[in-house]
Amino acid sequence: MASQIAPTDRSVDDKSVGIVQTKLAQLFEPPSVLVLESGGRLGPINVAYEAYGELNPEKDNAIFVCHALTGDAHVAGKHSIDSRKSGWWDGLVGPGKALDTTKYFVICANVLGGCQGTTGPSCPDPATGQPHGLRFPFITVGDIVEVHTALVRSLGIDKLLAVIGGSLGGMQVLDWVARYPDITGAAICLASAAKLSAQGIAFNAVGRRAITTDPQFQNGDYYGSDPSKYGDVGPRAGLALARMVAHITYLSEASIERKFGRDLQHGDHLAYDLQSETEFKIESYLHYQGKRFIERFDANSYLYLTRAMDYFDLAQRYGSLQEALGRTDARFLITSYHTDWLFPCSQSRELVSALLQTHRHVTYLELDSVFGHDSFLLEIKQLEELVTPLLRETYRRCRQS
Amino acid sequence: MASQIAPTDRSVDDKSVGIVQTKLAQLFEPPSVLVLESGGRLGPINVAYEAYGELNPEKDNAIFVCHALTGDAHVAGKHSIDSRKSGWWDGLVGPGKALDTTKYFVICANVLGGCQGTTGPSCPDPATGQPHGLRFPFITVGDIVEVHTALVRSLGIDKLLAVIGGSLGGMQVLDWVARYPDITGAAICLASAAKLSAQGIAFNAVGRRAITTDPQFQNGDYYGSDPSKYGDVGPRAGLALARMVAHITYLSEASIERKFGRDLQHGDHLAYDLQSETEFKIESYLHYQGKRFIERFDANSYLYLTRAMDYFDLAQRYGSLQEALGRTDARFLITSYHTDWLFPCSQSRELVSALLQTHRHVTYLELDSVFGHDSFLLEIKQLEELVTPLLRETYRRCRQS
Repeated sequence: MASQIAPTDRSVDDKSVGIVQTKLAQLFEPPSVLVLESGGRLGPINVAYEAYGELNPEKDNAIFVCHALTGDAHVAGKHSIDSRKSGWWDGLVGPGKALDTTKYFVICANVLGGCQGTTGPSCPDPATGQPHGLRFPFITVGDIVEVHTALVRSLGIDKLLAVIGGSLGGMQVLDWVARYPDITGAAICLASAAKLSAQGIAFNAVGRRAITTDPQFQNGDYYGSDPSKYGDVGPRAGLALARMVAHITYLSEASIERKFGRDLQHGDHLAYDLQSETEFKIESYLHYQGKRFIERFDANSYLYLTRAMDYFDLAQRYGSLQEALGRTDARFLITSYHTDWLFPCSQSRELVSALLQTHRHVTYLELDSVFGHDSFLLEIKQLEELVTPLLRETYRRCRQS
Repeated sequence: MASQIAPTDRSVDDKSVGIVQTKLAQLFEPPSVLVLESGGRLGPINVAYEAYGELNPEKDNAIFVCHALTGDAHVAGKHSIDSRKSGWWDGLVGPGKALDTTKYFVICANVLGGCQGTTGPSCPDPATGQPHGLRFPFITVGDIVEVHTALVRSLGIDKLLAVIGGSLGGMQVLDWVARYPDITGAAICLASAAKLSAQGIAFNAVGRRAITTDPQFQNGDYYGSDPSKYGDVGPRAGLALARMVAHITYLSEASIERKFGRDLQHGDHLAYDLQSETEFKIESYLHYQGKRFIERFDANSYLYLTRAMDYFDLAQRYGSLQEALGRTDARFLITSYHTDWLFPCSQSRELVSALLQTHRHVTYLELDSVFGHDSFLLEIKQLEELVTPLLRETYRRCRQS
């Protein structure tokens, strides 16, 4: 697998990586299949990824971006001139931005078990030609990281300059340095934790239950003739509901109050009508979020990935956080957000404490933002100020050593 | 309607009101039907209530208890010798307790729109003999209070010693003093607010959506031959899901963490099995809560009552909180709980501020408790210490005036 060329069409705007394409790598070809943490085996595995900028001849300028629960490989740029939407972290990745694609080679790949090109439950099982459904093997954050490590190595990269991610992406960052202490110069873990809280598991349980109790779920075998068309088949109501409840947890109480308050969707007068399900603006907004989500996400992937998130427990796996994080020389940047109640600051403090106890290099910031858990996706300026110098300094040190 | 006798069988224990019965009052007989806030009309209305202690000859020792969203009239005592469960506030109501039934006459009634004996959507429409379902008129907190006021008056009581309630019950307390400034000597409003937050509306919207998208909902016409058997028919999965998500909001993050953490339901080893839906204890607990709830609650009532809660907005109705609360001479006790994120302390502070601006008599406490929103149901000792002297003093002052 050759390294990817930088997209040259920057017609979108000067600070965009331009028009980009999702690439596909096929890894873990039998007999070299991936042995999963559960003991299961999987291979071949397709990995959908995007890459921006140029990998330098020394191959020491690569940054891997780990996406969150429902993200994908499309971090920056646009898929076509007509696309209305840029990648999910376009503000952070591009020429002159924090992840500066004129200097760095930025890679992001869809996670194992996902539904945006990387092998997951909606993909055909080579043995039967039918979608895996719930016969897809159980996967963990560690398995996701193994696949991404293999991708990075297939691109000829032995050591990353940095690995960065928020939320479930941050969990991957932590797992990566625990698993491969020498694989990265910097580890940037945003709005995340070494384990999901019981409350987080509770909300995931509700989401999964919404999916599995939807009669259209059919024990995961709901795919029609085209398994990529999630929006048309399966537990649409259940998946939308799962998204609605999850979406509430991504926002802060203050941001919901500020954005919606008790405003009505239509007019100034209460309807006094029980049939009006989207009377308040916040209701309408949540229904819309649910509806949009089912067009782009597969319910089985949602089950697998939320379970991977529940299972993640760095201290439990490695004996302690100190054991897990004490062996890497990566320079850490950890941020948490005061209004994030899904991954509260206290969880980042635990991480930082373990890093300090093992004399790691760590920068920690508890940031003000009204946006709750979503802050890491939205507070780009804040992030840029932290990430830019860290990358510059890490790059300088890597080159010196 | 005569006042109720005190239950004499105290065989349960010395501090119990003993074996109690739910009574039924029929009010708003046509043509004197209730004109609802929505403009609809309803009557006759059955009201299920319980009463403990003796109404004194002066009829000035009555306390009305307002129950929360899914509560009922059964506040204290047991329904039979064999009952395993006492009433929902048994710790607070009984001989020698805060609501001392040797001194006070304590009344609680199921709310309009409920499903525990008071007229609601599961009751037969007199016109057709069939359950109302979604043809039941839209109701508000104000309508609930009107029905309870009528009940109290039917018992020969012109003025209550106190009205007390938490959460939706606290909203009723506030509505009561706004609507009838002279009706009570004391107003005790716990873990509540003058309006539901946007986040609260959002969670209610998710719960309702879970119900209405369940195919068994059938637009509210799911009742079998016996509409009181909620557990057997209707949107069971949807209602259970609604309860699961609501239940999370009743607990604090700390209490879930302390009680469940990441403990597994069976054994010490992760199952690595997606079919295991109750692998973590917190999941098993939530599933159990959902299952228990559908045995005792009607999905249509859940829709009506959550909507009544969404609609409640004291300031909007009366012009301002000062207008709403400034006309009563009731002595207020307001409590909020640091870990309650559904009805945060900030909302109680708004209430207190309005009361102080209008020179009302108010005692306000922000209490420490790990139990989140449920604290008002669980921190009995704390409450007792506040409620006992307030009732004693209010009673003394009422007698003097």
